[in-house]
Amino acid sequence: MKLLRFGEFGREKPGIELATGQRKDLSAHFADWNRDFFQSNGLAALRKLLDSGKNLPDVAPGLRHGSCVARPGKIVAIGLNYRDHAAESNLAVPQEPVIFFKAPNTTVGPYDDILIPRNSTKTDWEIELGVIIARDVRYLASQTQAADHIAGYCISHDVSEREFQLEHGGQWVKGKSCDTFNPLGPVLVTPDDIEDIANLDMHLAVNGETRQKGNTRNMVFGPHYLVYYLSQFMTLEAGDLITTGTPAGVGLGFDPPQFLQQGDVVSLTIDHLGSQRQQCRNA
Amino acid sequence: MKLLRFGEFGREKPGIELATGQRKDLSAHFADWNRDFFQSNGLAALRKLLDSGKNLPDVAPGLRHGSCVARPGKIVAIGLNYRDHAAESNLAVPQEPVIFFKAPNTTVGPYDDILIPRNSTKTDWEIELGVIIARDVRYLASQTQAADHIAGYCISHDVSEREFQLEHGGQWVKGKSCDTFNPLGPVLVTPDDIEDIANLDMHLAVNGETRQKGNTRNMVFGPHYLVYYLSQFMTLEAGDLITTGTPAGVGLGFDPPQFLQQGDVVSLTIDHLGSQRQQCRNA
Repeated sequence: MKLLRFGEFGREKPGIELATGQRKDLSAHFADWNRDFFQSNGLAALRKLLDSGKNLPDVAPGLRHGSCVARPGKIVAIGLNYRDHAAESNLAVPQEPVIFFKAPNTTVGPYDDILIPRNSTKTDWEIELGVIIARDVRYLASQTQAADHIAGYCISHDVSEREFQLEHGGQWVKGKSCDTFNPLGPVLVTPDDIEDIANLDMHLAVNGETRQKGNTRNMVFGPHYLVYYLSQFMTLEAGDLITTGTPAGVGLGFDPPQFLQQGDVVSLTIDHLGSQRQQCRNA
Repeated sequence: MKLLRFGEFGREKPGIELATGQRKDLSAHFADWNRDFFQSNGLAALRKLLDSGKNLPDVAPGLRHGSCVARPGKIVAIGLNYRDHAAESNLAVPQEPVIFFKAPNTTVGPYDDILIPRNSTKTDWEIELGVIIARDVRYLASQTQAADHIAGYCISHDVSEREFQLEHGGQWVKGKSCDTFNPLGPVLVTPDDIEDIANLDMHLAVNGETRQKGNTRNMVFGPHYLVYYLSQFMTLEAGDLITTGTPAGVGLGFDPPQFLQQGDVVSLTIDHLGSQRQQCRNA
């Protein structure tokens, strides 16, 4: 299944995308794709509804695409999780996952504008595989148990301001939590619709020129291991997002570095998960 | 005013504490002390109600004290913000605030148990002044504008697991986001009820023995500056918590270090903000 949300920012309604590409409105049946929905096994109820063949209304054409799920309770981000990106950052491949949080109020739709923060000269891109948690989870005994706790996958754009992140002391969150810094979607794809999560091509371009070209097979720690690992340190809640790190090709890694400017267009694609496109403008 | 919440975890109701110490039930008038309440200028409505002299029901004796506000949308924590704590950590006093996030689902009541995580040997205490945001704020022009954006102050216990925080690579969040790691309350005190926020004694004891004894005058960056500073990097939302750092005397700073064990009792007091008390038990 491919879940999506549509309508005005902050008032999105839940819908799905059919294999034909049609968008259907599910708001008569579900309040939202949020923590309550996932935690109450809403995905099974949704599947049952779809299997029943019930007639569903179309989403009116032209309505905005919201983030594919409601604002997560938390966004857990994994750093340096692709070997090639660690190398371009001149950092060692980590022995254990590197974790940081993004503010949840960074989440926007896949085609919304990216706001370049005031006083920013180093706004950068990061295409990532996003993982949405299916139910509250703590202390998993092994990564094989993780599959039951993953609701699905989506494109997560971990927009980052490198000066804020790296040149103002301390931890990374300053450069990760600006408004609009997490376009999410266009769809959340359930695991049964993805043949091999460890073999998805990823592509990001700026103004049509390729900047990142990777594949999830190059991840250091895969999604199942990450869910297991994180559950040792915190309770992951239904609807939480894990954004699993980015492959090589971020702006900071170029010589000289390249960063986003007002008017730039970023486009992102991951196999089976669709495409995003954002235009940059100054906050 | 002193706001509080009472009742079962996850189903708390809003109330207040009068100057007499009586707890009054406000649930007939307000849904919760949450983002919607603060953002819609609920504090002014609450004051008006109290000034009207309306008769309010008592909170039944013995009901649990919840966190003084609803789970924050985010918890922004400030590191190394007391000169004496930076010294005991063998770290320089920061030039700019050091920021990290705690998971919002760490928030519990002021007298709830602290769960020592599995595999933890270094669970530590940190008494802190908590600041609750009054309305959404971005790009404040100066710290003098910050006062209007502070709903009040409370005790925030920033429980921390030092091995998770410091010995597993990367950022600090692993040691800051375990269940129960943020007892909050017992009351949120509005700024008009505190004569000088920069002169509050703070005291933390373990099993009755003093461990931290500080005063907010020793903060490197005060609450108003922090609100101003953070607003340059992110949108602070109504109901968000800033936990502003801890004075000297954490367990890691002792020689040899001291950490919490099952059965230990931690008690915390800050002038005008009341007291907390937690018993530790293994998760």
